[in-house]
Amino acid sequence: MRNSAIDGVRGRFLDFSESVEKRSDFDGAVRYVEDGLLLLKEGHIVWFGDWSEGRDQLLEDAHIHEYPDQLIVPGFIDCHIHFPQAEIIAAYGEQLLEWLNNYAFPAEKQYGDIAYSREMAEFFVAELLRNGTTTAAVFCTVHHQSAEALFAAAQRRNMRIIAGKVLMDRNAPPDLLDTPEIAYDDSRMLIEKYHNQGRLLYAVTPRFAPTSTPDQLAVAGQLMREYPDLYMQTHLSENKEEIQWVQELFPDRKSYLDVYEYFGLTGPRSIFGHCIHLEDGEWKGLYDTDSVIAFCPTSNLFLGSGLFDLERARKENVRVGVATDVGGGTSFSILTSLSEAYKIMQLQKQKFSAIEALYMATLGGAEALSLDHLLGNFEVGKEADFVVLDPAATVLQAKRSEKSETIVDLLFALMIMGDDRTVSHTYVDGRLVHKRE
Amino acid sequence: MRNSAIDGVRGRFLDFSESVEKRSDFDGAVRYVEDGLLLLKEGHIVWFGDWSEGRDQLLEDAHIHEYPDQLIVPGFIDCHIHFPQAEIIAAYGEQLLEWLNNYAFPAEKQYGDIAYSREMAEFFVAELLRNGTTTAAVFCTVHHQSAEALFAAAQRRNMRIIAGKVLMDRNAPPDLLDTPEIAYDDSRMLIEKYHNQGRLLYAVTPRFAPTSTPDQLAVAGQLMREYPDLYMQTHLSENKEEIQWVQELFPDRKSYLDVYEYFGLTGPRSIFGHCIHLEDGEWKGLYDTDSVIAFCPTSNLFLGSGLFDLERARKENVRVGVATDVGGGTSFSILTSLSEAYKIMQLQKQKFSAIEALYMATLGGAEALSLDHLLGNFEVGKEADFVVLDPAATVLQAKRSEKSETIVDLLFALMIMGDDRTVSHTYVDGRLVHKRE
Repeated sequence: MRNSAIDGVRGRFLDFSESVEKRSDFDGAVRYVEDGLLLLKEGHIVWFGDWSEGRDQLLEDAHIHEYPDQLIVPGFIDCHIHFPQAEIIAAYGEQLLEWLNNYAFPAEKQYGDIAYSREMAEFFVAELLRNGTTTAAVFCTVHHQSAEALFAAAQRRNMRIIAGKVLMDRNAPPDLLDTPEIAYDDSRMLIEKYHNQGRLLYAVTPRFAPTSTPDQLAVAGQLMREYPDLYMQTHLSENKEEIQWVQELFPDRKSYLDVYEYFGLTGPRSIFGHCIHLEDGEWKGLYDTDSVIAFCPTSNLFLGSGLFDLERARKENVRVGVATDVGGGTSFSILTSLSEAYKIMQLQKQKFSAIEALYMATLGGAEALSLDHLLGNFEVGKEADFVVLDPAATVLQAKRSEKSETIVDLLFALMIMGDDRTVSHTYVDGRLVHKRE
Repeated sequence: MRNSAIDGVRGRFLDFSESVEKRSDFDGAVRYVEDGLLLLKEGHIVWFGDWSEGRDQLLEDAHIHEYPDQLIVPGFIDCHIHFPQAEIIAAYGEQLLEWLNNYAFPAEKQYGDIAYSREMAEFFVAELLRNGTTTAAVFCTVHHQSAEALFAAAQRRNMRIIAGKVLMDRNAPPDLLDTPEIAYDDSRMLIEKYHNQGRLLYAVTPRFAPTSTPDQLAVAGQLMREYPDLYMQTHLSENKEEIQWVQELFPDRKSYLDVYEYFGLTGPRSIFGHCIHLEDGEWKGLYDTDSVIAFCPTSNLFLGSGLFDLERARKENVRVGVATDVGGGTSFSILTSLSEAYKIMQLQKQKFSAIEALYMATLGGAEALSLDHLLGNFEVGKEADFVVLDPAATVLQAKRSEKSETIVDLLFALMIMGDDRTVSHTYVDGRLVHKRE
C-alpha cells in the first residue's frame, strides 16, 4: 500500500508562503516556483526551492520523481465529511431532515458490522486519495467500530485524519442511538487508543443538537475539558427547519450556536459544518470563541440548504475551510467543491478567486483545522502531503490549459473543470499513495 | 470516422413511449425494457422490443452490439450551445456583459479564420459525442466560415444539428460586426447551402437584442418569413443588467421578449436561451407564440445569472429543453447540466425527478426543438441516435450503482455523479461515433 520513500520531487510548485491575515491579500502570499525541487526525509519536507539551487545537494543515487508538465500543490484538506455515507451519494429528492431519515440513517446502520466498516473505510480512504485529499475531518457512525475501522485505514497510510464516533441519543432509529454513558465510555476508549497516535487526531462528534440530549451534550463538553487538545465537530444552521427544531428542543438557549456554547463545545478546535443561516449573534459567537466553519458547497446546493455567505465570514474574520460533506455532498473532489463554491459566490455577486480557493483548500484549511504548524504548504519541517495536478487530464482540459496565459488562469480552469482525473498523483507522508490509472 | 453500419443493439433500454402533455405524468410515459433489442436500417429504427420477441427475426450473420450491464437511452439533446466558446470554458470572475467583452468576443474573433474554424469544429463535435449529445442547437460566430465549418463537421457524421451564423451589428468589437445586408446575404447563402441538407437545419441567430440594430432584427424577421421552416435562436432575460440595457435600447417595446416578437422572431421554432427573470407578460408571450426555452443550468450558476423557475414553466405550459451553454456553461455534459438543474430546483424547493430530467434531455428536448417526429425515443421509424451509459464508469459510481434497487434511482445517481465517462458509447445515424477510451 505504501510505496518506498523517495528523496524528492521536481516540478512546478504552487503554494502559500505564509498565512493570510484577515483573509485579505491572498495574492501577496502565493508562491510559484516554476522549476522547483522539494526534498523529503521521513515524511517531512527538508528543503524547498529552485531546482537550480537545490540540484547540487542531491546525492548521485537520489530518487527524484519529476513532473515537468503538471502543477504540484499541497494536499487538499476536507473539513467535513461523513465516512459512512459514501454509498448514498446522490440520494433523491429531499432536504436535510427527510434526507437523514430516508437515506443517511439506514446507510449508517450497516456500520455496526466491523467487517463492513473495514471494507468501507478502505474504500473511503482510497476515494479521498483519488481526489487529492490528504487530510480530512471525518464523521463516523455511532458505532465505535466505524471509528476504529477508519483510524486503522488512515494509520496504514500514516494520513493525518481527524475523526470521531458520532454521539446520538435521540431522534434517530433505535439501533443508531447510544446513551450519554456509552458516548462517554466509547469516546474515551477511542481517544486513549487513537488520539495523537502517529498522525491521528480525535474529534468529539455530536451529530447535531437535535440528536443529542442535554445530558449527552454535557458529556461531550466534559470530554473536551478532560482532553484539552481534542477537536469537536458538528453541524450548525444548515437548514431552516433544522433551526426551528433546535429552538423547540432547546427553548432556553438564545440561538443554535448558543446550545453548543452552553455545553462548552465552541473553541479554536471546534468545527461547525454549514453555518448558512447564522444570526448576527452567532457570527459574533464564532469569532469570540475562535470557532471554525466548514463550508460545504456541493451539499448546500444538493440539499437545497442555501447559499453560504463567505463575504460575511471574511468580514467577521472567522476561519473557513472547504468541505465535501459526502454524502449530502455529491463529490469527493475538493476541486469540484471549489467550483460549486465559486457558483455560490457568483449567485451572491461575491468574488472568489482561484488563489483564495487554493488557499482555502490547503494552508487555509490547515489553519481552519489548527494544523498549519504541521502542514498546508511546502515550508521546511512540515509534513510531506502533496498532490500533482494534470492540466491535460481530459481532452477539453488540455485544450483549455493550452489557452491559459497565467498560472492563476490555469488554476481557475482546473478548479472549475476538474475532478478526480485532474489529480494524477497523491503523496502522503512523503510517499506516493495514489496514481491515476 | 463513421464505423460501418450495424444491424442492431441489445441491452437495457430506457426511453419515453409518448409525449408528456402539460409536463405532468412523466412516470406514466417512461418505458423500460430490461433485455431489449433495437434493430436499425439506414440510420433508422426498424424494430424495438424485447429480445425474446425480436431474436427470431435476426438473420444468422446479423451484427449486434450487446451491452448487458449498461443502460441505453436516446441521444442527448443540447438546446443552446456556442461552438466558438469551447476554448474559454471557465473564464474567471465576471457576470454576463463583462464576460462577453473580456472572454467571449476575443475568442470568437479567431473564427474568421476558416482553418481555425475547421479545427475547432472537429474538436467541438467530438466533445458533443464524448458527452452523448447527438443533437444540438448551436451558435456560431458572426463569420459565415464558422457556420460552414460546423455544418461540414456535422455532415461528415450525419448528425442532426441546428446552427446559424450569429447576427451582430452593434455593441461588439468592430471585427465581430456584420451589417443588416451582410447578415441577410450570408444567412441566405448558408440556408440555401445547408438547411435541410441531410440532417442539417438552419437557425437565424441574432446573438441578443443589444447587439443587433432594429434594422438587423427586421432582416432576421424577413428571413423567417421567407423560409417558414427555419429556426430562430437567441438569448432572453439572462441577467438583470442585460434586461435594463434592452429597455434603454428599445424604449418603445414593452418587454425584452416584445423586442423579438415585434420583429417576428417568436414562434414554435424560436428558442430562447435562459429566461430567468421573465415578467408575467413574457411568460404569456412565450406560451401564446408557442416559443421555447433553453434552460442552461451550469451557465446560470457560473455567471451568477440566477435560478430558472421550472415550476413556472410547467404551469405556463411552455416547452423547456436543457442546454449546456458552453462556454458560459462549464461542461459539455448534459448529465452534469441535469445535476446542476436539480440543485437549482432544490434551492427553490422545487422537485425535479430523474425521469423528468431524462425526458428533458431526450424526447422533451426533441419536442422543444420540434424534432420529436424524427427523434427523441426508440419509436420505429425514428432516427437512430442513442447513447450507452455505464453505471460503473468510476469506482464510486460502481459502488453507488451496486446499492441501487430501482432503475430510477440508478438513473438519478448517473445524473448527479455522471460526466463524460458515464457515456461509454455514442451512436449517430445508427453508427458508433464515439467509444470511451
